[in-house]
Amino acid sequence: MLNTLIVGATGYAGAELALYLNRHPHMNITGLTVSAQSADAGKLLSDLHPQLKGIVDLPVLPLENVAEAAKGVDVVFLATAHEVSHDLAPQFLAAGCIVFDLSGAFRVKDPAFYTQFYGFEHQHQDWLDKAVYGLAEWQADKLKEAQLIAVPGCYPTAAQLAIKPLLEKDLLNQDQWPVINATSGVSGAGRKASLGTSFCEVSLHAYGVFNHRHHPEISTHLGTPVIFTPHLGSFPRGILATVTCRLKPGVSAEQVAEAFQSAYANKPLVRLYDKGMPALKSVVGLPFCDIGYAVQGEHVIIVAAEDNLLKGASAQAVQCLNLRFGFPETTSLV
Amino acid sequence: MLNTLIVGATGYAGAELALYLNRHPHMNITGLTVSAQSADAGKLLSDLHPQLKGIVDLPVLPLENVAEAAKGVDVVFLATAHEVSHDLAPQFLAAGCIVFDLSGAFRVKDPAFYTQFYGFEHQHQDWLDKAVYGLAEWQADKLKEAQLIAVPGCYPTAAQLAIKPLLEKDLLNQDQWPVINATSGVSGAGRKASLGTSFCEVSLHAYGVFNHRHHPEISTHLGTPVIFTPHLGSFPRGILATVTCRLKPGVSAEQVAEAFQSAYANKPLVRLYDKGMPALKSVVGLPFCDIGYAVQGEHVIIVAAEDNLLKGASAQAVQCLNLRFGFPETTSLV
Amino acid sequence: MLNTLIVGATGYAGAELALYLNRHPHMNITGLTVSAQSADAGKLLSDLHPQLKGIVDLPVLPLENVAEAAKGVDVVFLATAHEVSHDLAPQFLAAGCIVFDLSGAFRVKDPAFYTQFYGFEHQHQDWLDKAVYGLAEWQADKLKEAQLIAVPGCYPTAAQLAIKPLLEKDLLNQDQWPVINATSGVSGAGRKASLGTSFCEVSLHAYGVFNHRHHPEISTHLGTPVIFTPHLGSFPRGILATVTCRLKPGVSAEQVAEAFQSAYANKPLVRLYDKGMPALKSVVGLPFCDIGYAVQGEHVIIVAAEDNLLKGASAQAVQCLNLRFGFPETTSLV
Amino acid sequence: MLNTLIVGATGYAGAELALYLNRHPHMNITGLTVSAQSADAGKLLSDLHPQLKGIVDLPVLPLENVAEAAKGVDVVFLATAHEVSHDLAPQFLAAGCIVFDLSGAFRVKDPAFYTQFYGFEHQHQDWLDKAVYGLAEWQADKLKEAQLIAVPGCYPTAAQLAIKPLLEKDLLNQDQWPVINATSGVSGAGRKASLGTSFCEVSLHAYGVFNHRHHPEISTHLGTPVIFTPHLGSFPRGILATVTCRLKPGVSAEQVAEAFQSAYANKPLVRLYDKGMPALKSVVGLPFCDIGYAVQGEHVIIVAAEDNLLKGASAQAVQCLNLRFGFPETTSLV
Repeated sequence: MLNTLIVGATGYAGAELALYLNRHPHMNITGLTVSAQSADAGKLLSDLHPQLKGIVDLPVLPLENVAEAAKGVDVVFLATAHEVSHDLAPQFLAAGCIVFDLSGAFRVKDPAFYTQFYGFEHQHQDWLDKAVYGLAEWQADKLKEAQLIAVPGCYPTAAQLAIKPLLEKDLLNQDQWPVINATSGVSGAGRKASLGTSFCEVSLHAYGVFNHRHHPEISTHLGTPVIFTPHLGSFPRGILATVTCRLKPGVSAEQVAEAFQSAYANKPLVRLYDKGMPALKSVVGLPFCDIGYAVQGEHVIIVAAEDNLLKGASAQAVQCLNLRFGFPETTSLV
Repeated sequence: MLNTLIVGATGYAGAELALYLNRHPHMNITGLTVSAQSADAGKLLSDLHPQLKGIVDLPVLPLENVAEAAKGVDVVFLATAHEVSHDLAPQFLAAGCIVFDLSGAFRVKDPAFYTQFYGFEHQHQDWLDKAVYGLAEWQADKLKEAQLIAVPGCYPTAAQLAIKPLLEKDLLNQDQWPVINATSGVSGAGRKASLGTSFCEVSLHAYGVFNHRHHPEISTHLGTPVIFTPHLGSFPRGILATVTCRLKPGVSAEQVAEAFQSAYANKPLVRLYDKGMPALKSVVGLPFCDIGYAVQGEHVIIVAAEDNLLKGASAQAVQCLNLRFGFPETTSLV
Repeated sequence: MLNTLIVGATGYAGAELALYLNRHPHMNITGLTVSAQSADAGKLLSDLHPQLKGIVDLPVLPLENVAEAAKGVDVVFLATAHEVSHDLAPQFLAAGCIVFDLSGAFRVKDPAFYTQFYGFEHQHQDWLDKAVYGLAEWQADKLKEAQLIAVPGCYPTAAQLAIKPLLEKDLLNQDQWPVINATSGVSGAGRKASLGTSFCEVSLHAYGVFNHRHHPEISTHLGTPVIFTPHLGSFPRGILATVTCRLKPGVSAEQVAEAFQSAYANKPLVRLYDKGMPALKSVVGLPFCDIGYAVQGEHVIIVAAEDNLLKGASAQAVQCLNLRFGFPETTSLV
Repeated sequence: MLNTLIVGATGYAGAELALYLNRHPHMNITGLTVSAQSADAGKLLSDLHPQLKGIVDLPVLPLENVAEAAKGVDVVFLATAHEVSHDLAPQFLAAGCIVFDLSGAFRVKDPAFYTQFYGFEHQHQDWLDKAVYGLAEWQADKLKEAQLIAVPGCYPTAAQLAIKPLLEKDLLNQDQWPVINATSGVSGAGRKASLGTSFCEVSLHAYGVFNHRHHPEISTHLGTPVIFTPHLGSFPRGILATVTCRLKPGVSAEQVAEAFQSAYANKPLVRLYDKGMPALKSVVGLPFCDIGYAVQGEHVIIVAAEDNLLKGASAQAVQCLNLRFGFPETTSLV
């Protein structure tokens, strides 16, 4: 059994993590914490998220001292804001913990991105260098030795799982950038009061056009420029990403199909569609990314659907945990 | 033409008022205001409510000085918080304006209710005495002379329109209190950031059980105790109220039908159903209260549906304005 | 291992059953069937319900011959229409199977109800007499010997779990009937094309006023008349029932609390709230019924929330299975 | 006053037409009809669409004989299926009526498209040649003489209004096809029972990939190939289209802005955003198309939002009527 601590357990991703880890046969939750300033400190997780009542009734304690909190802990999950993860991760790592960070704080190697897209100066180039980006289907080997796993963002997971098989097989025309249109549920904005996410204000619209912080994460890890347009949808959970790419001249629909099949044949958390396109409801509440695609002439359209809180956050974090420690990949997930 | 000022124009009810008054043939909007502390002061109403773009592009100005703001103004609409209306209404009345208050500040005569349910001590017993309660279908005569019209709350409008015809005809068994179950859209909570009305937190549930502030408003104006259980629903607008009452022994279904028909025969903003029950979507965006009913033995069930922001607030305010000044009752509404 | 057959597996409740039984450690799904006339016959369950892809990929076969289908089967779940269950259950019972029927065909003892509320003449008085009504928290002992278990309807489960503790302790004033207002998600209407459940037509409204078929089921099993008003809500899953009752004079809030606590202290699938009222989102996707209550004077309001497809159908069926065969009550459910 | 007949009045677009035309100062509705086979024949429009109760209470009559129905009628609106419009329009035209067809039956000149995308052989090349495509902002002059106006489809209206200003100014790089991703509300599928549009089945997904019938309509009228990917969203009304285009080298953001401003400066039903992007809720229930755009390097993203039943159907039909007869463009619409 590995002892584990969830930091930032009160958010939507944190609550999902608690649910997965609570039933994980090899994990023992030794603590749930939240910022000492939070009004939620001291409450039961199941008072904040009543769906967990009778399932995970642990208290959420204020995180006052990292060294203290890290004692006896093997694995730490950080479901915290980017700046908070940036500060906490090195401390838990120094204490010998394996850290799974669900924020964006260690996802891209170039610290300049943090200045430009996240609004803070990154202080930990060493950990940026050592962090393993946890896009699980593509990083299984690197994960085995990782100390710090930067779990990918919700949009980047869907976008990269959709595009990477074609890029790896060199089927895409590089003159034309992939166009990624994605729509996310409101939980992607986190659990907090804000006018923009209040019930009566939410409505389908594009946002962060040309300047969303997931843009550099996607293009850096794909190694190719993309056009990424995120949208907010009127639903609590899920992401649907529709990607339009241009194939190299002469590439056939069969080659496209073969690229997807070879990429995901043995990947239990990616479900390939051999006909039709995935719908959001097929993945909400589930740890999968569902992918469909269609080819016409030199054009290919790929649709990827996932639960932004699960395959786009907590389920992928647990998937990375499983790969890191050699547990079966879907343990506690399916 | 009557000059009119809308105070608190940035909220959901205020925006609807602006839309109605802007197209009202006898009204001239001379100003829209908001609290001087508000971050919205100085913006266009249509920047806050983009659906009004090209329709009502007036600026929302900070309300700094009531005497100044009241100059040349015939009619004031207060779409403000209870405490704010409580303070402002007497000042605008002193300046000679006719005031339509959409808050609860002058709806019940007994000031003790304000201490108990609204959390403030009421200072204006004189205006509590003079205020006319604007349940339009039942108060047409009194409205003609009113200086201060207390426009009813959203739940009380639906509940009273449902019950009053039976009470007036003395058909109800007084031993058994009417049971009012009502479900409101989220806009009833106002336009503001709060965790409880954030998109991912909203979910059908009962609240304010036995202690909602609309309870005394309903029972006082009906003159009978009731059991009122409000619910929040996962939709932006509308109220559906289901009322269960016990009839006096021997009362027939025909007597019930006759009570409703005689009450609302010439009331254009109440639509009676002769079969079936009204659905929420039939009234959203419209100024009507739709009412259906069914009788079995000594039991009667009445369902009333309205748009909480319209018949439950702004449309009823304009209906009261029309009755107050002798304009056709549905002017600018239908 | 018990061999099990799910008849009517293509509906919403059937798909949930397949998910639960597939992961049940003591159950082996030997077949999924649908009417031989259905266009779905021969398809994979996961083609009809893509969320099951990779989890339950079994084919749905046409049910042509009951005797053949029953061979080697220990347990049959009927997730079929009332009339179909009425015809099939006796055949499977004759073949020696234990039958869990999710329809209304065997829920009330008096065959006259079927003529009046279900539109068919009941032919199997013997099985009406022998059937055990599977309101699991209240029937654990009877279930142990049952051959035919009539799993309660979705509304009746919520309503009875809310009222029964007070009735059993004789705390209710019998002069005044409990008023049950309940709102159900659209999946309660089943998986089929109809204008009334099409996306653009669904809207909060009351239906079946004074004549819903769950009315006799509730009042018969409670042993007391009730007023039951069902509503359709604009959400796919879940039921919220708000029940208003009158207490006997002198009954205290403590007595009410004690009644609920003693009824459900050791019932893992009923979650009692000691403060506040349950919200729909806390139970959707989960096998629980959540219950809150409040007392004022002689009035008590109880709110019960459940997933209509789970505690209101499939989860309760599996709970009954567990009780019938002596498995731990929450096996495969939590 | 012009006498007008609405054929196919029972659908969602038909009901909106009835509402607009009923309040139009120059129009007199002389009849509402539906197919003689329809179960709705003989009912009141307000029984089918209760929101119209007290507003448009006209009966919907069976259309039995076109010559008879056309007597005394100046203007006919066809809110009928494509095949039905194809058959009826020439008959009403022969009777001397001006016909506004909301179906796809006369939108593209090349009859081959009908065979390929609509599944029927077009028989009226003469009317295909004479029909004026009613994209109102771009066709004002041609509309003045038109006898048959083919009102554009919902997706094509949003897509063309977004792209046409840039094409007309020759700012787009023709090597790269515009990528149109659009999400429509469920009412776009019409008012009918079908499993695919039932409440519990609807979920955000792409459909008609590479083969939707609006594809040739868009590319033909723009005169350029496009990639069009429609999606169904979980909301009743509205379309949001996000268009990604490549600019010619050297084209500036100012040129893009100038193109939009000059195109729509005097077009009251297109609302240009000078900052930010339109949201769906800003146009639902309103006759506008709202457009925002952003430029980065050679890439431009344009977002267009409209109510699919209004600017995407009925409001545009009335706008065409106004332009055809020289009434002010927004008569009865704003």
